[in-house]
Amino acid sequence: MKVCIFVTGGTFDKEYNELAGELFFKDTHVPEMLTLARSRIDISLRTLMMVDSLNMTESDRRIILQNCKDAAEDHIVITHGTDTMAETAALLARGITNKVIVLTGAMVPYKFGSSDGLFNLGSALAYAQTLPHGVYIAMNGKCFPADNVVKNKQTGIFESLK
Amino acid sequence: MKVCIFVTGGTFDKEYNELAGELFFKDTHVPEMLTLARSRIDISLRTLMMVDSLNMTESDRRIILQNCKDAAEDHIVITHGTDTMAETAALLARGITNKVIVLTGAMVPYKFGSSDGLFNLGSALAYAQTLPHGVYIAMNGKCFPADNVVKNKQTGIFESLK
Amino acid sequence: MKVCIFVTGGTFDKEYNELAGELFFKDTHVPEMLTLARSRIDISLRTLMMVDSLNMTESDRRIILQNCKDAAEDHIVITHGTDTMAETAALLARGITNKVIVLTGAMVPYKFGSSDGLFNLGSALAYAQTLPHGVYIAMNGKCFPADNVVKNKQTGIFESLK
Amino acid sequence: MKVCIFVTGGTFDKEYNELAGELFFKDTHVPEMLTLARSRIDISLRTLMMVDSLNMTESDRRIILQNCKDAAEDHIVITHGTDTMAETAALLARGITNKVIVLTGAMVPYKFGSSDGLFNLGSALAYAQTLPHGVYIAMNGKCFPADNVVKNKQTGIFESLK
Repeated sequence: MKVCIFVTGGTFDKEYNELAGELFFKDTHVPEMLTLARSRIDISLRTLMMVDSLNMTESDRRIILQNCKDAAEDHIVITHGTDTMAETAALLARGITNKVIVLTGAMVPYKFGSSDGLFNLGSALAYAQTLPHGVYIAMNGKCFPADNVVKNKQTGIFESLK
Repeated sequence: MKVCIFVTGGTFDKEYNELAGELFFKDTHVPEMLTLARSRIDISLRTLMMVDSLNMTESDRRIILQNCKDAAEDHIVITHGTDTMAETAALLARGITNKVIVLTGAMVPYKFGSSDGLFNLGSALAYAQTLPHGVYIAMNGKCFPADNVVKNKQTGIFESLK
Repeated sequence: MKVCIFVTGGTFDKEYNELAGELFFKDTHVPEMLTLARSRIDISLRTLMMVDSLNMTESDRRIILQNCKDAAEDHIVITHGTDTMAETAALLARGITNKVIVLTGAMVPYKFGSSDGLFNLGSALAYAQTLPHGVYIAMNGKCFPADNVVKNKQTGIFESLK
Repeated sequence: MKVCIFVTGGTFDKEYNELAGELFFKDTHVPEMLTLARSRIDISLRTLMMVDSLNMTESDRRIILQNCKDAAEDHIVITHGTDTMAETAALLARGITNKVIVLTGAMVPYKFGSSDGLFNLGSALAYAQTLPHGVYIAMNGKCFPADNVVKNKQTGIFESLK
């Protein structure tokens, strides 16, 4: 089974600029994470954009949607900032019904050494290989369908709506 | 959905004894890993033993089998040394057919900073929540049924038998 | 020989706020660093403030000066943001001549896993135990007297003025 | 001021072989550590051997002595296993009196993420630049002359003899 990973940025891939003292994006760390994980999954990886999801536009989301539609693979993982992950998931769910799409992210950048990213990537890739067609968010070890998930802004935790 | 984690030791939980310069077992790091992962899964964790799987006896394996049978949960993850993980999986598959049991492990100790353990734990917990009844090994992002998996001793990678 | 460490903040002690996605100060990591280092130096540690050195006021600097004067110890290390470290060093050098004072800092927060902080702390503590009375900046393995040092803003490296 | 670093192995440079589950030596991590430290010291580095100091022979020690004698630099740091560091220091002290030689090491391998190595390297390089001619051991932030130091085997800590 082949899995397609689309990278869109988010906390996952943020780095520390030591001259400016600020966080920024350079390259994605997903390939490095897959190497560390000794992943043997047959993966096709493509970086669509590198943005903070608070800055993600409707145009950005349409690019993600189109890429999911065009992908040869039926099993897709999308790395995404957590702040608007649920919005992107909802858009994808309206547009695609014949694939398994799992969005995931991290609360702490992978480069900071104490990130939840590797755990989330592992669970997202497993969910993408086993769940039926649909769009899902995999965070904190759990998996939510796109029409029943919200990020609690106070706690940073994804929860069911109902 | 509640998931039960049984800890049996393995590379996962090895630490470095700085006085002796040797690897040894103290406590399991699984709770620390779940905290780092910000896991929100409802988990019941129990340490059954802390052994290198090369030293695991038939008696040890029967203890694991009995605990899986006795567990109130239908979804079980077992952390286990990789060297004899396939043997334990085979024994469990012969004895239990009405639960989802996923064995996982690591090639590098969690405490060494560059471990595959967090990724494997994330994927094992996802597989345990989604797969049908059966016994499986989750390593390197993939999942193998207990009757069709072997560890390649040369490469350290788990592969299908057939 | 007893060494006094005064903590003033700086990149050294910055942490990542995973809800806001921003860097902030909580507690100093210097005690944790000394434990990791297995330091056996007799140390008296006091946190004077937790500020980004770009926000350090003249009043803050007078607090540092007064604490250096009042300290019972003759050997002092000050952790400090790098941006205005040279200014604080110059002020201290004008006010104190009978002690060894070594300022140090980091380009990357200690918590980010790839920090220069532990190396700089080790060298600053060594310089504080061996150099003659005076005020110094210890960064990048080197040590500069307070009247002959500047931070190159383009490269982030401390250099001699002359 | 130029500093010469001689690498001889020790815990400092041990790595984890994930197939055998054992510690072993490959290449030295000192250049990587100096890069992480953003060291600006003018350094000449040479790997003399890669051995556990328990296995270091008299012949090995004579190689170290000869290299220290032959070095163009007057300021030398030697990375060394801790178990017989005091013996090598004593031999060097008998043979060389016109240079500053500082031996240092680590209790935990640099690659394990929680190593004291970076701190010890920082302090050893500072001591090598500031102390008068002599042979010293720099560990745990302190510095001992070669004729007054012993490793306490129970605690792993270096102490004065008298």
